[in-house]
Amino acid sequence: MSYQEMTKEELQEERNKVAAKYEELKAMGLKLDMSRGKPNTEQLDISMGMIDTLTDYNLVGEQGVDCRNYGVLDGIIEAKRLLSAMIECPVENIIIYGNSSLNVMYDTVARSMTHGVMGSTPWCKLDKVKFLCPVPGYDRHFAITEFFGIEMINIPMNEDGPNMDLVEKYVSEDASVKGIWCVPKYSNPSGITYSDEVVRRFANLKPAAEDFRIYWDNAYCIHHLYEDDQDHILEILEECEKAGNPDMVFKFCSTSKVTFPGSGIAAISASKANLDFIKKQLSIQTIGHDKVNQLRHARFFGDFNGMIEHMKKHAEIIRPKFEAVLNTLDKELGNMGIATWTKPKGGYFISLNTMDGCAKKTVQLASEAGVVMTPAGATYPYGKDPHDSNIRIAPTYPSPEELTQACEIFVTCVKLASLDKLLKNM
Amino acid sequence: MSYQEMTKEELQEERNKVAAKYEELKAMGLKLDMSRGKPNTEQLDISMGMIDTLTDYNLVGEQGVDCRNYGVLDGIIEAKRLLSAMIECPVENIIIYGNSSLNVMYDTVARSMTHGVMGSTPWCKLDKVKFLCPVPGYDRHFAITEFFGIEMINIPMNEDGPNMDLVEKYVSEDASVKGIWCVPKYSNPSGITYSDEVVRRFANLKPAAEDFRIYWDNAYCIHHLYEDDQDHILEILEECEKAGNPDMVFKFCSTSKVTFPGSGIAAISASKANLDFIKKQLSIQTIGHDKVNQLRHARFFGDFNGMIEHMKKHAEIIRPKFEAVLNTLDKELGNMGIATWTKPKGGYFISLNTMDGCAKKTVQLASEAGVVMTPAGATYPYGKDPHDSNIRIAPTYPSPEELTQACEIFVTCVKLASLDKLLKNM
Repeated sequence: MSYQEMTKEELQEERNKVAAKYEELKAMGLKLDMSRGKPNTEQLDISMGMIDTLTDYNLVGEQGVDCRNYGVLDGIIEAKRLLSAMIECPVENIIIYGNSSLNVMYDTVARSMTHGVMGSTPWCKLDKVKFLCPVPGYDRHFAITEFFGIEMINIPMNEDGPNMDLVEKYVSEDASVKGIWCVPKYSNPSGITYSDEVVRRFANLKPAAEDFRIYWDNAYCIHHLYEDDQDHILEILEECEKAGNPDMVFKFCSTSKVTFPGSGIAAISASKANLDFIKKQLSIQTIGHDKVNQLRHARFFGDFNGMIEHMKKHAEIIRPKFEAVLNTLDKELGNMGIATWTKPKGGYFISLNTMDGCAKKTVQLASEAGVVMTPAGATYPYGKDPHDSNIRIAPTYPSPEELTQACEIFVTCVKLASLDKLLKNM
Repeated sequence: MSYQEMTKEELQEERNKVAAKYEELKAMGLKLDMSRGKPNTEQLDISMGMIDTLTDYNLVGEQGVDCRNYGVLDGIIEAKRLLSAMIECPVENIIIYGNSSLNVMYDTVARSMTHGVMGSTPWCKLDKVKFLCPVPGYDRHFAITEFFGIEMINIPMNEDGPNMDLVEKYVSEDASVKGIWCVPKYSNPSGITYSDEVVRRFANLKPAAEDFRIYWDNAYCIHHLYEDDQDHILEILEECEKAGNPDMVFKFCSTSKVTFPGSGIAAISASKANLDFIKKQLSIQTIGHDKVNQLRHARFFGDFNGMIEHMKKHAEIIRPKFEAVLNTLDKELGNMGIATWTKPKGGYFISLNTMDGCAKKTVQLASEAGVVMTPAGATYPYGKDPHDSNIRIAPTYPSPEELTQACEIFVTCVKLASLDKLLKNM
């Protein structure tokens, strides 16, 4: 029976039961973590072949580059080929970076602050710079823009992507809007994928600012959970070109959740004009990124097909975890009228919405019972969820047993927080 | 006989001989490179053990960190211990970065532009920011400050370091002077090492600007050529602390010329207050650097002694090259009155000064005869050597045979350029 339909007495009785259950779980003194999109040990193990990949001692790339020495600012051809296949762009439209796409995004914003975008006024010289932030979204994106004092504007997410009416309005009317953070596929945290119409509307934006860019973080582009039921997105670089906006997008990706997080390779993909501007700065910043690691990745996978096969192994490991969480949510919170959640076909997260005003309380209760969740509010700019309702669930890191326990505690906390709210309002 | 003592006729005769020799060498159609401080293949080979270091598949660090996964923003303890021994600082006073100390320096300046230094006004909000640049110096340092529009002021180098009277004057009188670029040991390009007195005067600076920092790029700290004749410098962090200026210095280092350039690990060392400020930004910029590579380095060397032994192998390979260049310079240009040069005991460069106005011409002649040198002027801010006299010689990359040929061409070019100048002035 839905909590909404219960009488005060029934709610009180239910609360007593749930509270007792909560105390029981809490007394187990567990220490579990569903807070971050971290691969688990089993996933890391499938990349251990990376360790042996170069033991033939041949570190010369196919273009004759000794990958051990200085040089090759924008990446060796093998790595460009691999990641351009991954991010779906021509091999000419990519720069290979170091281990972190987050760092590439940070650098992209930092460069815009001090040097503008393709010749525009540096943002640090402007009174106001704004970014659109589809919500719920990725906390580390918001942290970058907050760090640079960029004002963030919430854009609600629909089931097929951001509310494009709002996006179009802001972008075309306000020249201080310089960017929008997007995770277009298996979005963080909702897991939704942008529809073709949404992508086309992005590509056809008419920005008031010449230095407006779409920050297209395709972090989960090949992170499917199911072999026979995958999301696809239109390729934005090509769509922008078709729409006469060839320079309007920066695409980012990395192998962080493909091989070893922290020891992968990252990339930016954009128009030639954008890349030329970026390379000017890059040539000041470094002599080059880690080419040995680029070669290691290229040799380990052989080609993009090798990467696709590799991703199937990841899916084998994490799919049951997603399903376990979703099953528990269905069983314990289904038809209760107190929470809704997404059922992603890929990526690293499930997004759950409690009743308004219950997210912080739920996360706090979980924490006190030994389950670390992403802080409530983290999926919103400035950590402020206006409804205090969104919670990001990251099911990949715990073991299946831990996950079962963590889910049991979590749903109990959702119930307890909801019951307290319903009782208080009576 | 010195060219200075020759009559016009003698000079003309000598010119004919040198020009004939030059044409003869040019006709060989060689392609040689003495332009960059790049290790040669033989040097890279001594680090090939890096490829096997982790093949026991144990990627868990001694503090229980799974180096394959996310986390550990400032570096694993093994890497901190290794590089803090290298850069001579307490293990608490270091952050381990990615593959490039140049990138760390770039980020340090970039952060100061947008966020100031430990709470000071961001430099992008100031009308004028200046850096002192001991000359001749490292072109990539100057490129960073030029890129950010920072005005660079030449400080002449003496045999024991920069002219400290000038440094003290600028730093204490001008609050827009925010930094000074230093390569304190086996300096780039002169190879000189700062004396204890110079280091102490640095540590005792009384800056007009609270956000003034010494940018201490200790790139060649362990890069000795001789086992029994090594330079030592006072440890600047400790000297600054003694002098009551604990926050005044950033130290940088990397393993780029220890293991594989481009695939090494880099670090910054500074006071706790500086590092705390830096870490705030770093936590926005990345989740962490490549810990697998950190572990690879730590395991490969075992400890700092392993690194010292490793550096002896480098010295074995490059010492004869330095000596070959110096011998040729002595033999061909000694007592000619047309050039002076340094005799470094470590590092990667020999610095040669032609007569005023002859450097560009010499480098051009060499280029036309197939020998690439660092562009004349590159060792000065804005690429402008006021005397057009300094040339940086990088002897490490060519093979011994190539080096002999390159030197022969180079000294011929020095002679030819000098003769032309002397004849023109008659």
